[in-house]
Amino acid sequence: MKSLKCLVFDAYGTVFDVHSIVAALDRIFPGQGPEVSQAWRTRQLEYTWLRSLMDRYEDFWKVTESAIVATCNAMKLPLEAKTRAELMKAYLSLKPFPEVKQTLSTLSKIPKAILSNGNPKMLGDVVKNAGLEGAFSHLISVDEVKIYKPSPAAYQLAVKTMGANAESIGFVSSNFFDVAGAKVFGFRTYWVNRSNVSGEGLGVTPDAILKSLSDLIELVKS
Amino acid sequence: MKSLKCLVFDAYGTVFDVHSIVAALDRIFPGQGPEVSQAWRTRQLEYTWLRSLMDRYEDFWKVTESAIVATCNAMKLPLEAKTRAELMKAYLSLKPFPEVKQTLSTLSKIPKAILSNGNPKMLGDVVKNAGLEGAFSHLISVDEVKIYKPSPAAYQLAVKTMGANAESIGFVSSNFFDVAGAKVFGFRTYWVNRSNVSGEGLGVTPDAILKSLSDLIELVKS
Repeated sequence: MKSLKCLVFDAYGTVFDVHSIVAALDRIFPGQGPEVSQAWRTRQLEYTWLRSLMDRYEDFWKVTESAIVATCNAMKLPLEAKTRAELMKAYLSLKPFPEVKQTLSTLSKIPKAILSNGNPKMLGDVVKNAGLEGAFSHLISVDEVKIYKPSPAAYQLAVKTMGANAESIGFVSSNFFDVAGAKVFGFRTYWVNRSNVSGEGLGVTPDAILKSLSDLIELVKS
Repeated sequence: MKSLKCLVFDAYGTVFDVHSIVAALDRIFPGQGPEVSQAWRTRQLEYTWLRSLMDRYEDFWKVTESAIVATCNAMKLPLEAKTRAELMKAYLSLKPFPEVKQTLSTLSKIPKAILSNGNPKMLGDVVKNAGLEGAFSHLISVDEVKIYKPSPAAYQLAVKTMGANAESIGFVSSNFFDVAGAKVFGFRTYWVNRSNVSGEGLGVTPDAILKSLSDLIELVKS
């Protein structure tokens, strides 16, 4: 087996908790925050897949905004322009999962990057607002190729940017579909399955399953 | 505007009610039939999109089977091999919506085809079991191009098979993502929105919105 040269992390759901927006949603839609958050995320991902297949890319900011608008319409919740803008702004300050900062700092010696659906501004802001600026050498956005994960073109960006072969890149994601795409592409894949869901149906087995990002520390040592 | 030369129908959800399987599911998982049916359908579609994007096509029979297995695992419902086989067999006898037979018979003069994610055997069986054998000149399966809707390659099959330009083909689907893909491809699109859901987020407006298939009769006349 080739030695591991770098770690590439998914952002949304892996480093940053997309559902940390529940508190903001709950203030606007009392009692419905968790449900809105789930439905928003589901739609957001669906739109990325469908737009990619239809070859009608729009960047992740617009997709995320379309998804909250459609979610509120479907749930018959009023969403004023001002509230929408607030929610979108909150997306730039999603909280990292509790173990993230310590884990990244312990893994200081191995090059680390983010490869995300987010557009460059979204990624720059969310990383900065979490105080993680120094942790990553590159914030790689699929916006460069105008197609979303799990398209191979998205993963190819990491190979190009990190100057490493696919098999020497460790790819870390909590999103099973993302792990599947990365594995098919040829990365070594670490699935962070925090909530113990079943990952299947795509004909792919991750190289390792982690309970949290901190499991990476032992894994990288060995 | 070019005149309408033929009608191309989506199968699952448009001509055939995928949720007509609820009764069978309810016998196996009492009280949970509707929930299992929804989750099964959601996963089935997700797998088609993800496998298409990852370029890891598997036919709709296998995708549908993987989806019921994963759904039951996620819901912690036991699914024996025999029960799984029964459910898959039930998928070959999905019921057409109530207005289908009469509508297709009234539209006898215009050429009609199905363009579906289903594999050729699934389509042949479901049409035959519904007594609709004479209604369609062609049952077109994306299996020929090994990529699912809404990829343009899927819609191109209808152009090739029907020998008509995209703009003279009326495409009928209840699935908004399918209408979106068909519209982007260049078809005239009729969205059958039976349950009055919101269709948005993909930057596409259907040419007409119908309450049921029978609305086609007036539309084709004019």
